[in-house]
Amino acid sequence: MARHIYACPMRWSDMDAFGHVNNVVFMRYLEEARIDFMFTRAAEAGAGEFAGGSVVARHEIDYKAPLVHRPAPVTVETWVTRIGGASVTVGYEVKDTNEDGTELVYARASTVMVPYDLAAGRPRRISAVEREFLSHFLENEDVPAAA
Amino acid sequence: MARHIYACPMRWSDMDAFGHVNNVVFMRYLEEARIDFMFTRAAEAGAGEFAGGSVVARHEIDYKAPLVHRPAPVTVETWVTRIGGASVTVGYEVKDTNEDGTELVYARASTVMVPYDLAAGRPRRISAVEREFLSHFLENEDVPAAA
Amino acid sequence: MARHIYACPMRWSDMDAFGHVNNVVFMRYLEEARIDFMFTRAAEAGAGEFAGGSVVARHEIDYKAPLVHRPAPVTVETWVTRIGGASVTVGYEVKDTNEDGTELVYARASTVMVPYDLAAGRPRRISAVEREFLSHFLENEDVPAAA
Amino acid sequence: MARHIYACPMRWSDMDAFGHVNNVVFMRYLEEARIDFMFTRAAEAGAGEFAGGSVVARHEIDYKAPLVHRPAPVTVETWVTRIGGASVTVGYEVKDTNEDGTELVYARASTVMVPYDLAAGRPRRISAVEREFLSHFLENEDVPAAA
Repeated sequence: MARHIYACPMRWSDMDAFGHVNNVVFMRYLEEARIDFMFTRAAEAGAGEFAGGSVVARHEIDYKAPLVHRPAPVTVETWVTRIGGASVTVGYEVKDTNEDGTELVYARASTVMVPYDLAAGRPRRISAVEREFLSHFLENEDVPAAA
Repeated sequence: MARHIYACPMRWSDMDAFGHVNNVVFMRYLEEARIDFMFTRAAEAGAGEFAGGSVVARHEIDYKAPLVHRPAPVTVETWVTRIGGASVTVGYEVKDTNEDGTELVYARASTVMVPYDLAAGRPRRISAVEREFLSHFLENEDVPAAA
Repeated sequence: MARHIYACPMRWSDMDAFGHVNNVVFMRYLEEARIDFMFTRAAEAGAGEFAGGSVVARHEIDYKAPLVHRPAPVTVETWVTRIGGASVTVGYEVKDTNEDGTELVYARASTVMVPYDLAAGRPRRISAVEREFLSHFLENEDVPAAA
Repeated sequence: MARHIYACPMRWSDMDAFGHVNNVVFMRYLEEARIDFMFTRAAEAGAGEFAGGSVVARHEIDYKAPLVHRPAPVTVETWVTRIGGASVTVGYEVKDTNEDGTELVYARASTVMVPYDLAAGRPRRISAVEREFLSHFLENEDVPAAA
């Protein structure tokens, strides 16, 4: 029931001509959070095979509020919404948490990832050690399709 | 029943360390196609207010095949799947069409856009002239959520 | 004494929060022009080994005027300012040419490139066929270091 | 005689198809370091007008070693090499410092910046408070043009 917390650094150039973080750049933030979760943290837990290869099959994202660059990072929370035989779906929230505990959510999103066997050149099944790692982050929500 | 056809130029740097066009860059291709459709072409049709302001509310994208950089552009077809009171949903296909007419689809996607009144600082309704323009591109498909 | 002419497509997102094409993005335009020159055009001339590997050793760029996104491409002219034993220096101008022949130059730049033997993992010398190709674009100018 | 030290976060997508941080992305790292130096730190010192507007007039950069993405940031050191009447030149090193104090330098660069009066739409002179701030970082080196 844990969530992976990533303090995502922003760049000034993430803003577009409207002076907001561009909608496409949010996908870059999700990528950085996902890499921190599935590569770095999974590797620490002995489930490092994702780093050897995985493919994005699908993204969904709902934009909730505009985000402006500042020196401080923005938080990306990542968790698991579904573990299939040969795919895993993660949910995300991009947000700030205020001192009083209230949150300002900038975007909610989800990604379907497919583990990939680079040597064999084809998708592969989720391994037992990956399933064990991912199960610690599993929440039974459907995010954000129902929004 | 028409589709808007955009020949999207690729950049060598659109590829990531795996040697494929990165999944996030596909969203950039969609943005370029959408701007060509809703700004340039709509303005030619007298519906130029979109350029004055619009906000992306939601994206969905399904990746179907890997895409590698080459000098020739890739085709992005854009059409309209829903015209609401204060939003419009567009569908896209990123693809190549072979000489024999067969197609190789790299991605299917959709975006919900909300027209925005920048002066008033709030969303606004679709105007009559925008609705007239958009209706020429309306297809009654649900793309790609059902995939 | 010829120059290589590249019609460089712009993207809306090339603009930053100041509403101009960001200074870093100019380097991306130079990269695209260089690839079109040294990979595509050199390969057509039988000097295709650059595409097999080359490394940027140095850039210089002077910004002359602000550039704003529009649907039409911007011109990048590329030529050769020096052919060394194991490096080549190219000069560029990023500009528009008006109907009356006058020019608006946005930036002048130069790049030192080193051919690289990827298999051997080290720089290599310019080949005879490369030298022949490059010599057609050689101008005895020092651009823009003297500025 | 101080240098401004910026721990520059890297993104996985900063790598290109050759598996190295792309040469253009180094310019992005310099931009982030410059913003941290001239906007954030200068503002803390009461010299916040740079943030109100400044223009890049020139870049030079020499690439010294390839850089590969890793979770840890890369260091960008920034200092001042020249304070003119209406411009300031900064030098940079992008590098890692090993535990034994030895350094691996990936790039050396310099940028000429011109303060800009956005309201008046023209360059302006360096103010006394800016000169005072910048003088703490002044080194009498010519970097990297002499390389």
